Amino acid sequence: MLQPRLASRAKRMRASEIRELLKLLARPDIISFAGGIPDEKLFPAEAAKEGYAKALDEQTRGISLQYSLSDGYVPLREWIVDYMATIGVQCDVENIMITSGSQQALDFIAKLYLSPNDTALVTWPTYLGALQAFNAYEPRFDRLDPMGNRSTAEIVREAEEAGGAVKFAYLSADFSNPTGQTYSREMREKLIEMADEFDMPIIEDGAYQALRFDGKSIPPILAIEQEQRGGDIEACRTIYCGSFSKTLAPGLRIGWVCGARQILDRLVIIKQAGDLHTSTINQIVIDHIARTVFDEQVDKIGSVYSARRDKLLAELKKHMPEGVSWTEPEGGMFVWVTLPKHLDGADLLAKSLETEKVAFVPGQAFFADGSGANTIRLSFSCADDEMIEEGMARLGRLIAGAM
Amino acid sequence: MLQPRLASRAKRMRASEIRELLKLLARPDIISFAGGIPDEKLFPAEAAKEGYAKALDEQTRGISLQYSLSDGYVPLREWIVDYMATIGVQCDVENIMITSGSQQALDFIAKLYLSPNDTALVTWPTYLGALQAFNAYEPRFDRLDPMGNRSTAEIVREAEEAGGAVKFAYLSADFSNPTGQTYSREMREKLIEMADEFDMPIIEDGAYQALRFDGKSIPPILAIEQEQRGGDIEACRTIYCGSFSKTLAPGLRIGWVCGARQILDRLVIIKQAGDLHTSTINQIVIDHIARTVFDEQVDKIGSVYSARRDKLLAELKKHMPEGVSWTEPEGGMFVWVTLPKHLDGADLLAKSLETEKVAFVPGQAFFADGSGANTIRLSFSCADDEMIEEGMARLGRLIAGAM
Repeated sequence: MLQPRLASRAKRMRASEIRELLKLLARPDIISFAGGIPDEKLFPAEAAKEGYAKALDEQTRGISLQYSLSDGYVPLREWIVDYMATIGVQCDVENIMITSGSQQALDFIAKLYLSPNDTALVTWPTYLGALQAFNAYEPRFDRLDPMGNRSTAEIVREAEEAGGAVKFAYLSADFSNPTGQTYSREMREKLIEMADEFDMPIIEDGAYQALRFDGKSIPPILAIEQEQRGGDIEACRTIYCGSFSKTLAPGLRIGWVCGARQILDRLVIIKQAGDLHTSTINQIVIDHIARTVFDEQVDKIGSVYSARRDKLLAELKKHMPEGVSWTEPEGGMFVWVTLPKHLDGADLLAKSLETEKVAFVPGQAFFADGSGANTIRLSFSCADDEMIEEGMARLGRLIAGAM
Repeated sequence: MLQPRLASRAKRMRASEIRELLKLLARPDIISFAGGIPDEKLFPAEAAKEGYAKALDEQTRGISLQYSLSDGYVPLREWIVDYMATIGVQCDVENIMITSGSQQALDFIAKLYLSPNDTALVTWPTYLGALQAFNAYEPRFDRLDPMGNRSTAEIVREAEEAGGAVKFAYLSADFSNPTGQTYSREMREKLIEMADEFDMPIIEDGAYQALRFDGKSIPPILAIEQEQRGGDIEACRTIYCGSFSKTLAPGLRIGWVCGARQILDRLVIIKQAGDLHTSTINQIVIDHIARTVFDEQVDKIGSVYSARRDKLLAELKKHMPEGVSWTEPEGGMFVWVTLPKHLDGADLLAKSLETEKVAFVPGQAFFADGSGANTIRLSFSCADDEMIEEGMARLGRLIAGAM
């Protein structure tokens, strides 16, 4: 009865595996670095409480509980316009659409661009949720590597041989999930050149962009491109996807898309067909929280998370056997660990759950081609000092024992 | 840059026209029967206020503001299981998935079943939002008419000639948008037979199902099918889409899907890829509101809306010239007016906005084949006595003048 193609796609997604993993968070005997979620103790709950009470007073309840327009709540979009200006993007309310989390933006963008057998360029590894969103439209994936040696012509030819075309490049440029790595300005410029050659949009996932702890900020790809195009956002091909999930709270499901109006107009139609609009009251409340505590909140998260990252990096250094390497992120929530080639992260996790009882995400699921078996992702966003000390001691023993 | 196919689809959707129409609601000189929205004065705002405050107390804020699982908040799904039992469907929590409004359910179901050139069977007319959701997957539409004269073989042959297969039938069985009409039990049974012949699911849109003012309740198609299959929901092909938008409040965007687990499992994967999950806090709050005031709320809405329907039917009778007919719904929010064949609802609206200043939705957009130009939809959910008296007097004059 169900489309067989989709059923097999469902298997590829491995969503159930990831869900099983997340359940481990709840098991008290496991020290978990698996869940890529923000620390709930840092949520701006008082501002949220105030925001909901205000949204439900007699003057506004008729608006906050009612249907609203698909492009989103105008005051929130105005706040986002101001925010985008602080990171170097000059835009207008019409260049912003609200989505139900940035995951929904990825789904809608894929819906707009991808037909079966088209090619999406993604980094090796990339955000698992992006692979899941894109997979529903049955593309093939090729490796996004702006500094690599393959020519545009070669990539295009292979895409055509597969029965489609190269439709977009997707990446998270700052402290990306899963690696924590940041693209240099040179890489970003190279990527814009590459997008011009392919005549394709760049999907820039900015989910972690505000969570920089140290190092020098690099403007978003969209900001660099806008500068190159004489300041004209309507001439830009980059589509920036933002999110309040990592800075404020994920439970309200509020994200946004920023880009040229001609693209946004089409995304608004897809949004309307997809769920009419994002929760009116949640948009009003996120607007309230953002206007009240955004900067303070980002500072607070940054100081807590950066201390956790420092601790994690120190304990990795102390406990990891030779032959193991890891990233040193300047922000975000993740450290990416590369094990010796013959080790398999999934095997290691299975073993860990019986012996050392430390949880992490095996890296293979983040690779569109199923490579990367010898990698694992560690999240430090919810880990306190004690967890990190004990957890890394256990992980070190586990890996040393498997080598 | 954009897929040309999608761009042309975007035009077909006529979403911008509908949005323009909705803006008329805000023009003080227009009496509008256009917007298909609930009356904001009836929203359970106090229960909502209480629900948000409770969801944000110190014990629960860490849950309500955090990520949650894609299938939905378990207590809310338990409430829905009990609710489904009251309308004749026996199911379990695993047969329920929460969606961001029932619009999202339609999108996800279309994503699961439709490939380009497949056939979706829909009523003539049908819910415009369903056509929009389905259109994104590039199907063709054929007319769903279980009591009609066309054979299954003929419909299947035409679907194959178009390059696809008949994938599902979609309908709203109770007080449907736009006609307000209800399918008889005999029609529902016939439809299940037909679905068996086609080996296809039935998508039952229950958005208005709870809003019955009078007449005898007819069990949902899913309930009738379950009875026929010996009580086994896992053997059922009907997928029921429910919504809190018409009973509680649309601004929270909470709906649900109820069906066999093998279908739900696939929809949960699509949900995860689509937006991870529906707003955690809104699910918790809808659970609170439903448990506190659902029955009371449905009674309140029913008594207000039924009085408005009575008034609208009485004024139609008073003011409509001969040759105009209309439905007499037993619930919901809409009356459907059929004009003499040579009149065009869109022309009439254009004229109305200059002269009589009464707004309605021209019916043609609700027909997948672009027929039905001589129909219009009137919504009575937000209309008070005075508006209805004055509005129908104007509409009567307008139509009489055009005849």
